[in-house]
Amino acid sequence: VGALRAEEAGAGRAVIGEARRAAVVAVGDELIRGERADSNSGEIAAALADLGIEVERVLVLGDDAALLERAFVELCGAYRIVVATGGLGPTLDDVTRDAAAAAARVKLVRSPEVLEELSALWRRRGREMPRSNARQAEFPEGAQVMANRCGTAPGFRVWIEGGMLAALPGPPREMRDMLARELVPYLRATCGVSGALATRRFFLLGLSESEFADRAGAWMERAANPLMGVTAHHGVLHVTLRARAESEPGANALVDARAGEFRARFRHEVFSEDEPRPHFAVGRALIERGIGLALAESCTGGLLAARLTEVPGISAVLREAWVTYSNEAKTRSLGVSRELIERHGAVSREVAEAMASGAARAAGARLAVSITGIAGPEGGTPEKPVGTVWIALAFDGRVDAREHRLAPLSRDAVRAQAVHAALDRIRRAVLAARGAD
Amino acid sequence: VGALRAEEAGAGRAVIGEARRAAVVAVGDELIRGERADSNSGEIAAALADLGIEVERVLVLGDDAALLERAFVELCGAYRIVVATGGLGPTLDDVTRDAAAAAARVKLVRSPEVLEELSALWRRRGREMPRSNARQAEFPEGAQVMANRCGTAPGFRVWIEGGMLAALPGPPREMRDMLARELVPYLRATCGVSGALATRRFFLLGLSESEFADRAGAWMERAANPLMGVTAHHGVLHVTLRARAESEPGANALVDARAGEFRARFRHEVFSEDEPRPHFAVGRALIERGIGLALAESCTGGLLAARLTEVPGISAVLREAWVTYSNEAKTRSLGVSRELIERHGAVSREVAEAMASGAARAAGARLAVSITGIAGPEGGTPEKPVGTVWIALAFDGRVDAREHRLAPLSRDAVRAQAVHAALDRIRRAVLAARGAD
Repeated sequence: VGALRAEEAGAGRAVIGEARRAAVVAVGDELIRGERADSNSGEIAAALADLGIEVERVLVLGDDAALLERAFVELCGAYRIVVATGGLGPTLDDVTRDAAAAAARVKLVRSPEVLEELSALWRRRGREMPRSNARQAEFPEGAQVMANRCGTAPGFRVWIEGGMLAALPGPPREMRDMLARELVPYLRATCGVSGALATRRFFLLGLSESEFADRAGAWMERAANPLMGVTAHHGVLHVTLRARAESEPGANALVDARAGEFRARFRHEVFSEDEPRPHFAVGRALIERGIGLALAESCTGGLLAARLTEVPGISAVLREAWVTYSNEAKTRSLGVSRELIERHGAVSREVAEAMASGAARAAGARLAVSITGIAGPEGGTPEKPVGTVWIALAFDGRVDAREHRLAPLSRDAVRAQAVHAALDRIRRAVLAARGAD
Repeated sequence: VGALRAEEAGAGRAVIGEARRAAVVAVGDELIRGERADSNSGEIAAALADLGIEVERVLVLGDDAALLERAFVELCGAYRIVVATGGLGPTLDDVTRDAAAAAARVKLVRSPEVLEELSALWRRRGREMPRSNARQAEFPEGAQVMANRCGTAPGFRVWIEGGMLAALPGPPREMRDMLARELVPYLRATCGVSGALATRRFFLLGLSESEFADRAGAWMERAANPLMGVTAHHGVLHVTLRARAESEPGANALVDARAGEFRARFRHEVFSEDEPRPHFAVGRALIERGIGLALAESCTGGLLAARLTEVPGISAVLREAWVTYSNEAKTRSLGVSRELIERHGAVSREVAEAMASGAARAAGARLAVSITGIAGPEGGTPEKPVGTVWIALAFDGRVDAREHRLAPLSRDAVRAQAVHAALDRIRRAVLAARGAD
């Protein structure tokens, strides 16, 4: 990793040395005005980190050709790898290509091949290409074109002051595809290997960040190799292990040894090593195993159903979901008796159990999940403060209800945590049932 | 707006002239690694824009004191107003205050008042203040402290190279509060007025961005005053009008004249002038008017229910919601006949109408809404391509179903658009019913 190959730099250009650091430039008036958040630079930083390249600064600029040109010259001189995203559209306020050409002190030239591809794309849509779109076939002279499989604006790589500028489109889907298919393979192929990096990822449910830190112990030290990084999202932990070594087999051996220990220590919490979204992991497990599902939600108001129905194919197992926000609905649709609710309150073990059993029965589902709790901001009491949530599972006729005390940061946060807690309960129940098959 | 008052700059410092441009520095390793998205800089840019100050660049940097110091010196020299966010925590990797002191060429000094406040805060929590937290009482010599009402880390303002650096905390809640209560009033009070800016905002449903542009016409020109900005989010448009004039009454008159024309031209589409979330606007309207609601969702899988139950107090009107993903559930819970589904298909006018009527009847609700459509990626046909969604409203016994052809960008995008289309239908129905009250 590091050192771009000299021949890539072209005659008369400075040879790129160790390139362990990089800069990202996100371009767009809507980003600088705060009208849209820049999610692209984070994805680019994560992809480069897997190559052992650290993004040291991200610069967000509006669609201003003079500012962009100056930034490209300064950053390419300082970093040698600069990735820009945005400003490749067809309109006159898309100026990344102009700024890149000016920074490289070359002119823009039209690519006949790209122009023909763009025209063909418009013809397939049954329309004449608007004249303005021909701009998307223009590139700084000497640049390498990067294909766009998800949109019309191709990207490019161009040399500026001995550094490489890679220009990617702004729409996240297009950026992501070009990053993965074009830029990352190029960097991997052309960066002279002066060391190797190996990465493993784990996604966990059921631990807070501090509980995780206590159990991970010395693995989390800043000087550790593999280095461990962890971030938390409403109860889901993303853990990355990155090992450095002289050779790739060495790095792999190092990271795999730690990954094995990690799997053993966190065997009850790791829900996936490739899918960060717990609802996708859990939904796919239910589909694979053909476990019919019913849901009965109160405080989460359909959020668990909405998450699970993001998963294509879930219709094969999702029998029905109820949002029984009112006590009348709990009684009418799930058969929870009015007396039970009066005696124990809607947020109680008894009502959670009755909701799950009732949903399983009404939908004829093998598994039913109920959630009833106090999301706030109102409705908390000393005995049942905001964040108190009961979750029950009815699975093959057995009912298991548990109380969860979630951090009452906000109404949204309580609901998001409750959904993740429910997904974790489903996951564990499905795993436990595996033996019975 | 512009020109910070000279006396604020202190003796021996350069006087700030016109300050219509600013820079933002977002600080944190987690931002630069893409582990967390930077939402703060957008909020800061929007707040400064309302003062007539344009954020021209946002720089994201890790917790690196040397990089930060250099950035503060360069940006304060170039921009005169620089706002930093993050890096004010108690641990050693929080280095914003050290970098600011080094950039200002002063030393860090401890504020006895702030130290006493911090100690008192810890005592109230029943704990001794950890020694490391005393760092949060240190500030660059000569800096003005900005109070933190939502956390422990105070912010500060300090002069560097004739420019003002304002350091805000990183946690969004703390940043937002200090921005609104400390920094914005300070800038408003100390910026010599050389012109005034007035802003009005509108939130619209039911138009695409290009339909809106066609109807807005010349109002959208770049040189127009008021200047109009628009962004689209799955069918919701955010429109900002910003008028500049010599005086505040002048700016207000200018923007109010256009705002009046705007309200007339888009009277059917504007759903709010203060609430950007359509589910909040619609949910509150239902609560205010006490209109009992039932929902029957197929392709959106509970997403409409999940959105509406974000609104505190919705339990007063939400009778029940069904996610009837399967045909069996449509028949069992909503009474949609099996023959009807077989004859017309689950995505049809007839089934949408039957779902809405069935939900209204089963829940005893005055208003019921059904959604049935093809979210994709599978399931489309030439007659009913992905993006075909039927939405029906049953309101006071009358049923009205309509077909929506939504942009099939992705499964999530179809579902999000369908929810917004349904909210728009509810909004219009409630408005139309106003006359009948």
